[in-house]
Amino acid sequence: MTDAALPMFGPGRHLLSVSQLDRAGLDELFTLAEAVTPIAERRSVCTVLDGAVLCSLFFEPSTRTRLSFESAFLRLGGEVTTTTGFTFSSMAKGESIADTSRVVSGYTDVLVVRHPDEGSVAEFAEASLVPVINAGDGTGEHPSQALLDVYTLRRELGARGKSLDGCVISIVGDLRYGRTVHSLMKLMSIFTDVTFRLFSPPSLELPAAIEDFVTARGHRVVTCHSAVEAVSGADVVYATRVQRERITEELPASMKGALLDRQMLLEAEATDIVIMHPLPRDSRHDSYDLSTSVDDLPGLAIFHQTDNGIPVRMAIFLTALGVSEEAVRMTLRQRPWDARLRWEQ
Amino acid sequence: MTDAALPMFGPGRHLLSVSQLDRAGLDELFTLAEAVTPIAERRSVCTVLDGAVLCSLFFEPSTRTRLSFESAFLRLGGEVTTTTGFTFSSMAKGESIADTSRVVSGYTDVLVVRHPDEGSVAEFAEASLVPVINAGDGTGEHPSQALLDVYTLRRELGARGKSLDGCVISIVGDLRYGRTVHSLMKLMSIFTDVTFRLFSPPSLELPAAIEDFVTARGHRVVTCHSAVEAVSGADVVYATRVQRERITEELPASMKGALLDRQMLLEAEATDIVIMHPLPRDSRHDSYDLSTSVDDLPGLAIFHQTDNGIPVRMAIFLTALGVSEEAVRMTLRQRPWDARLRWEQ
Amino acid sequence: MTDAALPMFGPGRHLLSVSQLDRAGLDELFTLAEAVTPIAERRSVCTVLDGAVLCSLFFEPSTRTRLSFESAFLRLGGEVTTTTGFTFSSMAKGESIADTSRVVSGYTDVLVVRHPDEGSVAEFAEASLVPVINAGDGTGEHPSQALLDVYTLRRELGARGKSLDGCVISIVGDLRYGRTVHSLMKLMSIFTDVTFRLFSPPSLELPAAIEDFVTARGHRVVTCHSAVEAVSGADVVYATRVQRERITEELPASMKGALLDRQMLLEAEATDIVIMHPLPRDSRHDSYDLSTSVDDLPGLAIFHQTDNGIPVRMAIFLTALGVSEEAVRMTLRQRPWDARLRWEQ
Repeated sequence: MTDAALPMFGPGRHLLSVSQLDRAGLDELFTLAEAVTPIAERRSVCTVLDGAVLCSLFFEPSTRTRLSFESAFLRLGGEVTTTTGFTFSSMAKGESIADTSRVVSGYTDVLVVRHPDEGSVAEFAEASLVPVINAGDGTGEHPSQALLDVYTLRRELGARGKSLDGCVISIVGDLRYGRTVHSLMKLMSIFTDVTFRLFSPPSLELPAAIEDFVTARGHRVVTCHSAVEAVSGADVVYATRVQRERITEELPASMKGALLDRQMLLEAEATDIVIMHPLPRDSRHDSYDLSTSVDDLPGLAIFHQTDNGIPVRMAIFLTALGVSEEAVRMTLRQRPWDARLRWEQ
Repeated sequence: MTDAALPMFGPGRHLLSVSQLDRAGLDELFTLAEAVTPIAERRSVCTVLDGAVLCSLFFEPSTRTRLSFESAFLRLGGEVTTTTGFTFSSMAKGESIADTSRVVSGYTDVLVVRHPDEGSVAEFAEASLVPVINAGDGTGEHPSQALLDVYTLRRELGARGKSLDGCVISIVGDLRYGRTVHSLMKLMSIFTDVTFRLFSPPSLELPAAIEDFVTARGHRVVTCHSAVEAVSGADVVYATRVQRERITEELPASMKGALLDRQMLLEAEATDIVIMHPLPRDSRHDSYDLSTSVDDLPGLAIFHQTDNGIPVRMAIFLTALGVSEEAVRMTLRQRPWDARLRWEQ
Repeated sequence: MTDAALPMFGPGRHLLSVSQLDRAGLDELFTLAEAVTPIAERRSVCTVLDGAVLCSLFFEPSTRTRLSFESAFLRLGGEVTTTTGFTFSSMAKGESIADTSRVVSGYTDVLVVRHPDEGSVAEFAEASLVPVINAGDGTGEHPSQALLDVYTLRRELGARGKSLDGCVISIVGDLRYGRTVHSLMKLMSIFTDVTFRLFSPPSLELPAAIEDFVTARGHRVVTCHSAVEAVSGADVVYATRVQRERITEELPASMKGALLDRQMLLEAEATDIVIMHPLPRDSRHDSYDLSTSVDDLPGLAIFHQTDNGIPVRMAIFLTALGVSEEAVRMTLRQRPWDARLRWEQ
């Protein structure tokens, strides 16, 4: 994967790439995520990270990802300091990434770093005294997104009596520039006998390196000529937004409408398929994305993904800071406030 | 009012408009605000919202309002995540308000939303899993401001042995575009026999709909020709800043100086009147606003308003999250730090 | 110093200038900083500021300083609200500093204020109900930086069996515009018999007023013609970045390379000298600053400075809020999380 030299993810370690997790590591992380789900859903509160401070350093905006990481840390009883935007003022004055990282890591206990340039987060990690979590570095990795995707997929399939091993996953949309698609396919290759059914507009096909990576691990890649064909017979469809300006060839007639809508799922006899998307989806009139017409289908899992981001990121923090499920349990208690939350009604 | 279909404000409910409070609801909210005042004034601390996370989403800047909401939530023992400015990056990529709201509401326990477009906050609330508090939507509502205004007015009049029923309130300044004036008048109409004495520069008169609203509820509206006339005989004057660029007609000579100053109050024999203003006030040389020459008069209540914003917003959060005064009391304790605060000296 | 009329720093007091600390006050502050170091290093956690809220108001960006103050406050168990940038929206509408300060000070327990204009922070303090900490006001003061510099110097010299009294400190770089240099020299003059060995590029010499200030207090100032000369025989070198655009005279040949590098320290037989810098340092190719070639020398203390910023700022908050070392100790406890931090390995 990205860097074979990276150590497995664990206590005191950075999380830079999905390649740092093998199947055992993934199982352990997911077990921890399941364990903290009652806290993520505010049925309990805990203070296990009492006194710990997260610094979230976002050198490019990604509000959703930042809020998810920050909420996850706060749910564990920690505290958060934040900086966003291009205005990390000392770097504008010529400070190196190494100096910035060393300084900030002396203030806090864990860093979440988002940066527009591939490799910058690894450079950050190199100089840090404390664990660094990669929240996306340009065209590079965004490991927590891939982890919450696979976690969600496991839960959705599990609820249908199926497993990640042997599953059929349809991936439609921008397969070329979609960082999340690449990470997802790499991480899915940990499992056995996965079939990927792919559909992308012309010029946005999957890079050969990714296809080679998964086929070398014994998985199947089927290239399809339409979204309808791709979803036929699949357990799940993972759709990603297509930015029209990235399509350099002539537009096919099929791209006049949505990337995937209710009508296509009807045609493919796949209205009960699990529907995933990394979000945000483009809901503007002329977008080429997942249509809102699928929103009341029973398999819609796009908000399960964002909801699951909280327990998965809680598990990432606990692992990096060396906190056991036991330690979490010891600080668990009833929440003292009692809103009638919508999901409890 | 804005929307007769909105349910009364209460546990698990959004607060979108002052129309969601009747007299009983207002009394209950104000009683709760009085109860938490020792916490707002840092004579005690409490942890009743331990483990709860607020997300403040400000799609336009309003630093004062944001800091007030955030401080109120922190005083109750909760935690805060924040996003400000136009850079909610996923919305720039075409994400709908509904998707954004659903996602963020899965991370947190309550949302405070400020948006430049009227109706946007209601759209946000529609898709949210958790209570949404409207912190201002364009020319629409800003209910917490109206609530802290009436709360302050009640306390100031109460300290003078008077009541909101039967009071005479002078309102001077921009009565046309001033959102706070409209909300205040609507909310005041809950009480009985209120006299509004109005003065505005030409072209900034009160919309007829607001006048009709309050007169239909049995209150009196008196239009005056000067600020001096408006404050004469009034219990309180509520002044709002006038943006000169909004005045389309020729400027009267009376607008060369301040909107309201000490000299005018002397002329009107009203130097002990309660003086209110939603702030900020424009203290620049050529502004047409409340003059600082009134700042040492005994009735100056403009900072009481901002101070009262904390307990009122605490009460709003407690109500939305279904937390009783009893529950607050159970987590009350002495503050462990002991600054000699100026108001205690 | 800046203002002889300022009271000594203590409970309930603002910290606007280093002139508010005499030798006894400095000793007390540093003793407190030593006491809270285990918390700063996350070997213990404490909740002494439970329920207290800091508002950090940065009218110009200074991410490093802001994160340091915020982390320090969070380590003590307090909570933080933040505003950054030019977008304090109410001030853009003509609100006076006095109104802004009075309002925000009613929300929170302590303010940390950074402002581009000299004197603005003092104006802020004038109207505040709660202690204001100056985090830098233009060409004026930045007292917490001077305090952490002297604190670090004391520790580094102490570890070498030396004292601040009688020490020889070399200061190289921009001595004219460098605010931190001026504050450092003023604060160092509290001690006895200090020798300052200065080197600056032409046109960036130390202002006469600062030289007069320290010589009037019995200290020695030696002006040198090169960095090598300046560091020779010194206990410590304090380097500051030179912005080339500030040099108005013809550039000497000596300014083609770094301000200070390993080779110069070798020449001066000073490779074990304590090396300090207020950071950020400019590590770009053509910068005139402290070179990274010194980074593995044993005396490198530039990151000790930033690390020490946390306990020093904790001590500032505790002093301003009137919290004793005793009170801190009563809320101390083991941290419930157990990351193997790099410095513990």
